[in-house]
Amino acid sequence: MQPDRSFLLTDLYQLAMMEAYHASGETGTAVFEFFVRKLPDRRGFFLAAGLEQALDFLENLHVPSEELEWLSESGHFGKPFLDYLADFRFTGDVHAMPEGTAFFPDEPIIRVTAPLPEAQYVETRIINILQYQAMVASKAARMTLAAQGRGLVDFGLRRAHGAEAGLLAARAACVAGFDATATVLAGERFGLPINGTMAHSFIQAHEDEEAAFLRFARARPENLVLLIDTFDTEEGARKVTRLAPRLAEEGIEVSAVRLDSGDLGALAKSVRAILDDAGLGSIGIVASGGLDEDKIAGLVEDDAPIDGFGVGSSLTTISDAPVLDCAYKLQEYRGLARRKLSTGKATWPGRKQVWRRFDDNGRMTGDVLSLEDDEVAGTPLLRPVMEGGKRLAPSPALEEVQARAARSLAQLPDALRRLDPADDYPVEIADPLVTLAEEVDRRMMGEAASGA
Amino acid sequence: MQPDRSFLLTDLYQLAMMEAYHASGETGTAVFEFFVRKLPDRRGFFLAAGLEQALDFLENLHVPSEELEWLSESGHFGKPFLDYLADFRFTGDVHAMPEGTAFFPDEPIIRVTAPLPEAQYVETRIINILQYQAMVASKAARMTLAAQGRGLVDFGLRRAHGAEAGLLAARAACVAGFDATATVLAGERFGLPINGTMAHSFIQAHEDEEAAFLRFARARPENLVLLIDTFDTEEGARKVTRLAPRLAEEGIEVSAVRLDSGDLGALAKSVRAILDDAGLGSIGIVASGGLDEDKIAGLVEDDAPIDGFGVGSSLTTISDAPVLDCAYKLQEYRGLARRKLSTGKATWPGRKQVWRRFDDNGRMTGDVLSLEDDEVAGTPLLRPVMEGGKRLAPSPALEEVQARAARSLAQLPDALRRLDPADDYPVEIADPLVTLAEEVDRRMMGEAASGA
Repeated sequence: MQPDRSFLLTDLYQLAMMEAYHASGETGTAVFEFFVRKLPDRRGFFLAAGLEQALDFLENLHVPSEELEWLSESGHFGKPFLDYLADFRFTGDVHAMPEGTAFFPDEPIIRVTAPLPEAQYVETRIINILQYQAMVASKAARMTLAAQGRGLVDFGLRRAHGAEAGLLAARAACVAGFDATATVLAGERFGLPINGTMAHSFIQAHEDEEAAFLRFARARPENLVLLIDTFDTEEGARKVTRLAPRLAEEGIEVSAVRLDSGDLGALAKSVRAILDDAGLGSIGIVASGGLDEDKIAGLVEDDAPIDGFGVGSSLTTISDAPVLDCAYKLQEYRGLARRKLSTGKATWPGRKQVWRRFDDNGRMTGDVLSLEDDEVAGTPLLRPVMEGGKRLAPSPALEEVQARAARSLAQLPDALRRLDPADDYPVEIADPLVTLAEEVDRRMMGEAASGA
Repeated sequence: MQPDRSFLLTDLYQLAMMEAYHASGETGTAVFEFFVRKLPDRRGFFLAAGLEQALDFLENLHVPSEELEWLSESGHFGKPFLDYLADFRFTGDVHAMPEGTAFFPDEPIIRVTAPLPEAQYVETRIINILQYQAMVASKAARMTLAAQGRGLVDFGLRRAHGAEAGLLAARAACVAGFDATATVLAGERFGLPINGTMAHSFIQAHEDEEAAFLRFARARPENLVLLIDTFDTEEGARKVTRLAPRLAEEGIEVSAVRLDSGDLGALAKSVRAILDDAGLGSIGIVASGGLDEDKIAGLVEDDAPIDGFGVGSSLTTISDAPVLDCAYKLQEYRGLARRKLSTGKATWPGRKQVWRRFDDNGRMTGDVLSLEDDEVAGTPLLRPVMEGGKRLAPSPALEEVQARAARSLAQLPDALRRLDPADDYPVEIADPLVTLAEEVDRRMMGEAASGA
């Protein structure tokens, strides 16, 4: 069983709690919501991503027979529970913000309404799926804003934490404005444009750089990008000026050169001059090597003549903020709103909706967090996407998700579009929700005291 | 095709270079080595982990027919190369440090010797696999040292970056001294002990905390751990003192209580007192919630009466250092040593060996990085593990790997065992390697100049 399809890819306590719920008949309707408690440092907004994979997980949830057998042999569980697992499926409803929607702390991006053992079981993987793509999409959005229209390509598979992270990072990056990925499987799986050049090892495996360039150009003439920094970047550019006319005679066009080390801004300027002096203005310059949104913004502000950026580690590991403070919390059970009191971790109880308001120019002005059945002015962001364990509509095309993300970025207040956001986005809590929270607290205090 | 078994889980440039190599007959023997350039901040050593998964990847490497078809239809590749891929296998040799070995910057932990297209192709996934487990094992080793013998359990699946990361983090943590993981699949896959308690939602789904404790205890009486911080931690502990005798009459023993919020050190002391006053000295205390090696060290130094720690985010995302500065570099091709000159990224050329020296007490005193055929005093760390694409020995039992890691930690100099290492570990470069590097530079300068 591959990890991403395994029923066993969960915390043992989920199965323990399910067994206890099953034993005592606690299978009433539970409502859980997933939300971010606090955005990472320097983040003014987050972008929702990963819903597609979350719904896929829910729709295909079952216990493969070999895993059921392992659970049985593990000795951790009793027969009644194992019998229950044999037919286990997700039969609940899901409301969610569409992928590509901007969101803020305390706003649920997905709500799961299902029999308690089902809604509980899915916690581990729902968090695992949703947080990572949201983190990558939100990081990528910062790069998209910083790049101001220049190209962006995901180079980060090797640095991602494992196979699935690399694959899903490519998707999340392209949701948030990246043009392409180097990850071939993301091309096959999601239809993303794939993009690749050459490595230093290719140059080093040849007797000299020019021979390597020629070999590569003749074998891979389409969309030809030559890596010119293996020995000396400017000398590499001069070699390209000598080779380009020869290659042109063979019908081969050099599309771009790539810089992967050194002072990228200064080198881009000198390489641009070398190419232009040789009448090769059509050859682009792409840069890579330790880039993040701050370095991209710096290069763009300096007018570095760089047409595209390849980004790796900082994107796929979200290196400045690899952990998201988020939670999937029980908000209601058997019709009664719930809330946790533990020190410093209280949450808003009940089934909630998020309403977004815009000014006349279509820019976001503030959100309201309310109970689901409150009528509040604005556009409701949570929509029904699954009923009775089945999707309500086919998956949207990735282009549609990308368009929504682009619209979200365009609608952000200017203060939030900066790499260091100038302001917090206003999220108001509707009065009936505040009132409910107080009621729940009083009830829980009573419960806590009742045992004393 | 699941991502961890996909041939397409690679960078497009690997396939582009392979096609160029294939077209020009550049299929001579290449030698690549994977090494860390620089340890992350505050790290005095690293632990090798992930070799098992890397060898599994190499031994099973092939192009599934549906992926070959996709490559063909993608239009990115020519027929001769696609024909070559149909029979593509890894046929090379591998030398490696055994998992659980401590290593340092510039020391290769794996060397791949294979026809150039094969050795090139495997780069992306070899890095993806080896760096992540090494990062997690090295982080976990810091926690093992900090915990001074108290229990450690991996709770981090949900925060890991995707499915494979969560699964492999559990393995790497247990290699480096963790006692168990909450991830059920890691139990099934690797035979690791699995461990789990209950979540706040379990308490919240019940009318009161005592009812929840009783329900859970009766349904899951083995290794019973009760989470006591949902409302008020000390009150939760007092409820346990009232319930424990009742449960004992039913033959159910409370194994431990868990604290997941608040001032863990202070709460552990007051909870310990409440339990001890009730004659319940046998009930342990486990703590979780935002722990890392520094917090664990602080709690241990303060003599907090905590018997075990559950660790999540900081472990599985390596939150303080989620990126490793590492590389898989061509060191030799067709018998000639190679090296990259690009600014700031030069590497030691040739096939290398690492020799480790110990004092009379068995503590490490220093390493020597040499050419493979140099005879240097000390224990050689790189050993042949694969020949002609086949493993030379069955996979070692995980217990063997864990024992080696424990030995490695015991052999470290004291200065390196501290969370803030007092010193760099000495890694000497043998003279013949320095001489070779100079020769390669002279040759490359000649090549770089030859085109001018």
